[in-house]
Amino acid sequence: MEIVIIGTGNTATVLGRKLKSAGHTIVQVFGRDSMAASQLAYELGTESTNYWNVVYKEADLYILAVSDIAIEDVLRELQLADKTIVHTAASVSKNILKNASHHFGVFYPLQSLKKEVGHIPDIPIVIDASDESTMRELEFLAHSISDKVVEAGDEQRMKLHLAAVIVNNFVNHLYALAESYCNNEGIDFDLLWPLIKETAERIQYISPAQSQTGPALRNDRTTIEKHLELLKKYPHLKRIYQTFTESIYVNR
Amino acid sequence: MEIVIIGTGNTATVLGRKLKSAGHTIVQVFGRDSMAASQLAYELGTESTNYWNVVYKEADLYILAVSDIAIEDVLRELQLADKTIVHTAASVSKNILKNASHHFGVFYPLQSLKKEVGHIPDIPIVIDASDESTMRELEFLAHSISDKVVEAGDEQRMKLHLAAVIVNNFVNHLYALAESYCNNEGIDFDLLWPLIKETAERIQYISPAQSQTGPALRNDRTTIEKHLELLKKYPHLKRIYQTFTESIYVNR
Repeated sequence: MEIVIIGTGNTATVLGRKLKSAGHTIVQVFGRDSMAASQLAYELGTESTNYWNVVYKEADLYILAVSDIAIEDVLRELQLADKTIVHTAASVSKNILKNASHHFGVFYPLQSLKKEVGHIPDIPIVIDASDESTMRELEFLAHSISDKVVEAGDEQRMKLHLAAVIVNNFVNHLYALAESYCNNEGIDFDLLWPLIKETAERIQYISPAQSQTGPALRNDRTTIEKHLELLKKYPHLKRIYQTFTESIYVNR
Repeated sequence: MEIVIIGTGNTATVLGRKLKSAGHTIVQVFGRDSMAASQLAYELGTESTNYWNVVYKEADLYILAVSDIAIEDVLRELQLADKTIVHTAASVSKNILKNASHHFGVFYPLQSLKKEVGHIPDIPIVIDASDESTMRELEFLAHSISDKVVEAGDEQRMKLHLAAVIVNNFVNHLYALAESYCNNEGIDFDLLWPLIKETAERIQYISPAQSQTGPALRNDRTTIEKHLELLKKYPHLKRIYQTFTESIYVNR
């Protein structure tokens, strides 16, 4: 497909790379930041623009990969009539696009995308569309870059995003809290990498509810009290520890 | 080395397997549960016993891989004089062993070990010892099964365990909460696997403090309010969501 990418951030960049290596042609990159746009365009082997009036009008698909709050600004400028337009946002209704074209939808990558990270991870794609033929078009496109493609409406997509926030943002925050504790205590955080990796990989074999272990689950007060004592200097982390210890116990 | 393993649980089993494949000889398995002991002994190509008076007395090393509270029971029965004895517990002082032998120490695997899991993950080993020669002996043994070996006293080991509880038990609990939410909402939890894997792997390239993203970090109240609305039916998960949203924001 011939694709115009609107946006130059992490989603625009990583989706652009995936689509290009799947054989699609990125015909143009639009970005308000002309430096970022020309850089991404160069990487994707195409041209860039930062003027709306020169956005290429004959592409098959326009991917709006901008922040949630920028979507409406873009739509004020962009009128496409019969070309397909999608946004990539988890929490924005597909209907925000209904005045931009007769064919619109959502192409939401359920992954944490960082342009600086060298490898490209597997990216499940969650799609939605205004009509059946657009849905088939997006399904085809999604399958060209991913093994996991699902259809979901606005509400299901938002629920998926909520679950993603828990297993990505919240989990990463626990990593960050542990790293900060280790740094303060002169412990090498890297020693925990194999454990972190194993914890994440195990859920493919055993449901996390089944594989829970640790002092909280077995109500091992001796160990819990020792840990709370160690956390005296860290009131914030101590509260997190207590919250989890209670939550694991009541959900056992 | 010739090794007697005392215990038949996850730590005893997985360490036994690792040590055997590294070329050590497990000369005996002791377990109070004779069925479990004979099963593990069979797997490790040796004999088992559930009587203290027939525990083999000429091994190089005795690994006490039993629960924290069972260590003292075992020590009441076991007198080894000059043989090396270690326990595998994070939160128990090495000095609990000082009456059992002149050579004692700790051999703590910093990993979540499950005998049912087919693959054996990397296992950093945290060692401690009563004297220099025992430390070198344990270091040699640890290096035979692991690339990551560190010395740490009782308190550092307990701090490492605390950090391990955060990145393993607490993280796994978040996975379990997300899985339960997905099941209740008719969402396929498996769709989150690539994201979970990427979140865990990324910390090898970027510090988790640097790679934090999401609505809490950017104080995106629109998305946060939508999520809290979705969590109305889940007061427990809602409290966890609020705790993290606040913690991520104040630690940004």
